[in-house]
Amino acid sequence: MTDLFTRHKPLLESALKALETREFWTPFPEVPSGKIYGETAKEEGESSYAALLGSAFDLPGHPEEGRVGSEVSPWGAELGITYPAAAPETLVAASEQAAPAFADSSVEVRTGALLEALVRLNKMSFLLGHATMHTTGQAFAMAFQAGGPHAQDRGLEALAMAYSELTRSARDAVWEKPQGKHAPLVIEKHWELVPRGIALTVGCNTFPTWNGYPGIFASLATGNPVIVKPHPRAILPLALTVRVLREVFVEAGLPQDAVLLAVDTPDAQITKELAAHEKVALIDYTGSTAFADWIRANSRAQVFTEEAGVNSVTITGTDDFAGMCANLAFSLSLYSGQMCTSPQNLYIPRGGIDTDEGEKTFDAVAEGIKQAIDALLSDPARAAGVCGTIVNPATLERIASARGAGRVIRDSAETGHGRSATPLMVVVEGADGPQNDECFGPVSFLVPCDSAEDAIARAACVARSKGAITAALYATDEALIRRAAKAFAQAGVNLSVNLTGNIYVNQSAAFSDFHVTGANPAGNASLTDAAFVAPRFRRVMIRWPKAA
Amino acid sequence: MTDLFTRHKPLLESALKALETREFWTPFPEVPSGKIYGETAKEEGESSYAALLGSAFDLPGHPEEGRVGSEVSPWGAELGITYPAAAPETLVAASEQAAPAFADSSVEVRTGALLEALVRLNKMSFLLGHATMHTTGQAFAMAFQAGGPHAQDRGLEALAMAYSELTRSARDAVWEKPQGKHAPLVIEKHWELVPRGIALTVGCNTFPTWNGYPGIFASLATGNPVIVKPHPRAILPLALTVRVLREVFVEAGLPQDAVLLAVDTPDAQITKELAAHEKVALIDYTGSTAFADWIRANSRAQVFTEEAGVNSVTITGTDDFAGMCANLAFSLSLYSGQMCTSPQNLYIPRGGIDTDEGEKTFDAVAEGIKQAIDALLSDPARAAGVCGTIVNPATLERIASARGAGRVIRDSAETGHGRSATPLMVVVEGADGPQNDECFGPVSFLVPCDSAEDAIARAACVARSKGAITAALYATDEALIRRAAKAFAQAGVNLSVNLTGNIYVNQSAAFSDFHVTGANPAGNASLTDAAFVAPRFRRVMIRWPKAA
Repeated sequence: MTDLFTRHKPLLESALKALETREFWTPFPEVPSGKIYGETAKEEGESSYAALLGSAFDLPGHPEEGRVGSEVSPWGAELGITYPAAAPETLVAASEQAAPAFADSSVEVRTGALLEALVRLNKMSFLLGHATMHTTGQAFAMAFQAGGPHAQDRGLEALAMAYSELTRSARDAVWEKPQGKHAPLVIEKHWELVPRGIALTVGCNTFPTWNGYPGIFASLATGNPVIVKPHPRAILPLALTVRVLREVFVEAGLPQDAVLLAVDTPDAQITKELAAHEKVALIDYTGSTAFADWIRANSRAQVFTEEAGVNSVTITGTDDFAGMCANLAFSLSLYSGQMCTSPQNLYIPRGGIDTDEGEKTFDAVAEGIKQAIDALLSDPARAAGVCGTIVNPATLERIASARGAGRVIRDSAETGHGRSATPLMVVVEGADGPQNDECFGPVSFLVPCDSAEDAIARAACVARSKGAITAALYATDEALIRRAAKAFAQAGVNLSVNLTGNIYVNQSAAFSDFHVTGANPAGNASLTDAAFVAPRFRRVMIRWPKAA
Repeated sequence: MTDLFTRHKPLLESALKALETREFWTPFPEVPSGKIYGETAKEEGESSYAALLGSAFDLPGHPEEGRVGSEVSPWGAELGITYPAAAPETLVAASEQAAPAFADSSVEVRTGALLEALVRLNKMSFLLGHATMHTTGQAFAMAFQAGGPHAQDRGLEALAMAYSELTRSARDAVWEKPQGKHAPLVIEKHWELVPRGIALTVGCNTFPTWNGYPGIFASLATGNPVIVKPHPRAILPLALTVRVLREVFVEAGLPQDAVLLAVDTPDAQITKELAAHEKVALIDYTGSTAFADWIRANSRAQVFTEEAGVNSVTITGTDDFAGMCANLAFSLSLYSGQMCTSPQNLYIPRGGIDTDEGEKTFDAVAEGIKQAIDALLSDPARAAGVCGTIVNPATLERIASARGAGRVIRDSAETGHGRSATPLMVVVEGADGPQNDECFGPVSFLVPCDSAEDAIARAACVARSKGAITAALYATDEALIRRAAKAFAQAGVNLSVNLTGNIYVNQSAAFSDFHVTGANPAGNASLTDAAFVAPRFRRVMIRWPKAA
C-alpha cells in the first residue's frame, strides 16, 4: 500500500523544497472558484452541508457510548448535528489498541495516507467552508480559505517537516571501526522510529482546522495515534476531517482508530480528563494561557501551545497615510479581531507623525483609521463579509467593558447579520491599563506615546512580557526601522513593516511564515519548525556484530 | 573573522555527512599515541597537568569574587587547584551582558570559533586525560578517550546538528503571490535566529566533558551564552574547556563571557540557585532523577536530562559462551560500573541456557561470568586499568548494602590502587527487590527468570518503568531475537545483541549511536538529534513590501 505515497510524492517533494526556500507555494488554491474546484463544487458543498444539518453524524466504527452536539451558528441557525461520544477512558483505550499497528506501519504508508487525506479534504473545501463558517462565525470567503486550503497548507507543511525528520538519518548502517593492523570491528545497526504515545489535539473555536491540522498531521505522520478534541462550539470541521482520515486509513490498511473524535458539551467538558491522562504523551493546544498553565501543571505530556498575546501596531510615520489607514482598517475589522494575529494595541506618538499628507496629530491618525473602518464597513453586507460574527458571547461583554477604559474614538456596532460587532477604538492613557492584557475581539486600544522610540519600546515590551504573534510598524526612517526590527526580534515577535494594499499583518502563510515564534509567552508551537515535529518520535537502535 | 569557519569547513561537512549515514567516523583519534598527537604530546600533557596542581587556575577576565576548589583525586592526591568563583547573580549578569553581541554574531563566526575550540581541545587530549583521570577516577586510557576525543566527537556532533538546523531554511526570501490578472503581491522577508536565552550546563562527576559538551556546544552554536556548572569534584576538565572557549572567542571577536565557569563546593552548591533563576532558559543536566525532578518543578527553562536507569543483560543462549563471559566481564568491570551505559541486571532463565559448550545451568552461567571477571582482574595493575577507582564514597556504601540483597556470587574487592571496588555479583530472587532501581556502581544483580521470554519481558519492563540507556541480549534463536528487538524498542532502549570480542554494550559512538533515546525515563536528551538542538533557538521574521 505504498502506492498512495508514490502517487503523491511530487506533492511531498514540492512541499519539502518550499520549507527550505520559504517562497510562496501552495498546492491548494485559496479562491473558491468553480474553475478550480469544479463547476459543481459550490453546489455540492452547499448540499452536502445542508444534508448534515439536523442529523446524526456518521463516523463508522468509531467508539460510541452516546450522542452529543449542540452547535449553533453565530449566523443564527442551530446545526442540530449529533456526534458519537465516548468517555475519555474509552477513547484512550481505543487509541492504545490502535497504537501498535499504527507505530509499526512504514513512514511511506502513513505519509501516503496523510497526503491522500489532505487532497481529499481539499476537494471538500466548499463543505469545509460552510462547516467552518457556521461554527466559527467567519464569513464564507474567509471560512473557505482558513478552514479549507490554508488549513490544508498547514497540515501539509507539518507532514512534510515530519517526513523530513523521520528520514534525515539512515535507518540501517554498517559501522566499521578500524583496528590498526587487526581486522576492523564491524557492527550492523538498525533504528526503529518509536512514536511518543497517544497525542491529544485540543481544538479552538475560531480556527478549528487551521490551528488543529499542524499537530494532528505531525503526530499522525510520526506514528502517534491522535485524539481530536474539538471545541464544543466548533466540532463539525474537525469531525469531517476525522472522517476523511479514518476512511483513508482503512483503505491504506491502517487502524482507523489511530484518529478519534472526542466530543463534549460546554457544560461537561472532557478536556481536563484527557489532558491529564497518564497515557497521553503529546498535547497540541490552542487557547487561553490560564488553561495552558493548567495543562502544563497537570499533564506529563510534551505540550505545544498557542496562547494569549497582545499584538501591536506602532505608527511613527508613513508615506502613504491613506494606504496605511485602509490597510489597518481591514486588519482591525477582519473577523472582528478574533484572529490570533489581529492587532490590538496601536502605539502612536502623542506629538503626531509625519506623513505624505503632512503632519498628522495623534487624533488625526486615530480619525484616519476610524474613517477608513467606517468606509470599509459602510455597506452592511460588506461589513458582514469582513467582520463575520462574534463566536463567543463573552466577547460582547468585553467590548462593553472596554468602552469604559478611555476615550472612545469609534464605537462598536452590529453589522445586521448574525451576532456581530464592528471594531471599537479606545484611547487609553498611562502605562497601566487594559492594553497590557489580551482583550480578544474587535477592541483596539490607542496608546499615546512620548516618541517613536517610546512607542516601539512599549510595543516590544508588551510582546516580550505578555506574548505576541504579530507586530506591525509604520515608519519612514530607515535607521528607526532597523532599531525597531531589533527590538521586536528580541521580543520574539514577527514584524510587518509598512503594509499597504492587499497584504495584512493578520496573514500567516504556510511554507513561509513561522506562525508563533516560540520566543515569547504567546506559545511554543512554531508552525512548523523542527522543534514542533522532532520530539514527537524517538529513534531506538538494535546493533549486532556483522556475520563474517 | 569567518576564516576559522572557512578553515574548518571540510571538518564540518564531514560531520554533517556522518550524521546522515550513521557510519563510523571521527576526526579525533582515540589512541593516545605520540605518532598521532606528536612525539612530545604525552610529556607535555603530563607536565601541563603537573603545573596546574596546587595553583590558582587562570581564567583571564572571568568574574571572580573569591576562589574555591577542593578536588581530590580518587587515585589519592589532592589537586589543590582553586578556580575563580562568583555568586550566581554575578554570573547571570555577566552572561546577560555577553548575550546581545553573542546573539548578533553570525552562524559562521560562532561555528568557526567552536570548531577551532574543538580542534584545540583535541590537541590537549593528554592534559584533558590527566584532568579527567584525577577528577573522575577513571584509569588513564579511558580518561584520555572519554575525556578527550570521544567527548570532542560528541561536541562536534552537537555543533554540526545545530549548524544543520540553523541553516535548514532560507534567511531571506522574496514571497511573490500571484493575484490572477493583477500584479502579484511581492513581500520581502528576513528571519533573525534568536537564541533562547542563558543556558546552564550542570556537569556530572563521572564524564564531565563527554556528558557536558553536547549541551555546551549546541547552546553556544545557537547563540546562547552558557554557564558551565561543573560537579564540585570534577571541575578541572570543564575549566580547561571553558578557558579554551574563552580564548577562541576573544580571537574571533566574540564576547568571552558567552561561556562562564560556575564553581562551588560540595557543602555550598549553587546549582539550585542557578537552575531556578528566571533568566536561565535552557538547562542541560546529567545526574539523579530526584534532582532532575527538582529542576523540572522549579525552573522555567527548557530542560534536557540524562537521569538514572536500570540497564540490563538478558542471557537466553549463546554460541560463544567464553566470548560472552569475557565480553560481559569487561562491561561489568569497566570503570567499576560507573558508566550510564554499564549493565546492572542480568536476567537468566533459572532452567539454564543452551551454549556452544552444551547446556549451562543458571549457576554455571553466573560462574562463567564470575571466572571471566576474576581472570580479567587477576593482575592488580590491569584491574586498576580496567576498573579505575570509585569516584563517590557513597558507592562503597551501596556495595556493602547490596551484599545483603541475596546470594553473593562474586564479592567486590579493592584493586590496590586508589579508592577502588571490583564487581559484586548477587543473585536476587523474586519480582521485588533492589534490582528494580538503579544501584550505581560495580553491582550486578543476577535475576533468575522462568524462561527466556520472561527474562526479556522483565528486562524490557524495568527499562520502560525505571529507564534504561542500554540493554544487551544473548540469544541464538532468530525469532526470539526479533521478539526481543520489538520489546526493547517499545521500552525505548537501545539493544546490543550477541556482543563478543572488542565491542561492548557500554560503548556509545558519536555520529552513529543516539545516546539516550528519550523514549523512557532515563532522560530526554538524545545525543544528538534534532529535538536536542532545534528548541535552543527561534526564528523571528521581519517582512515588508518589496519596493517596486
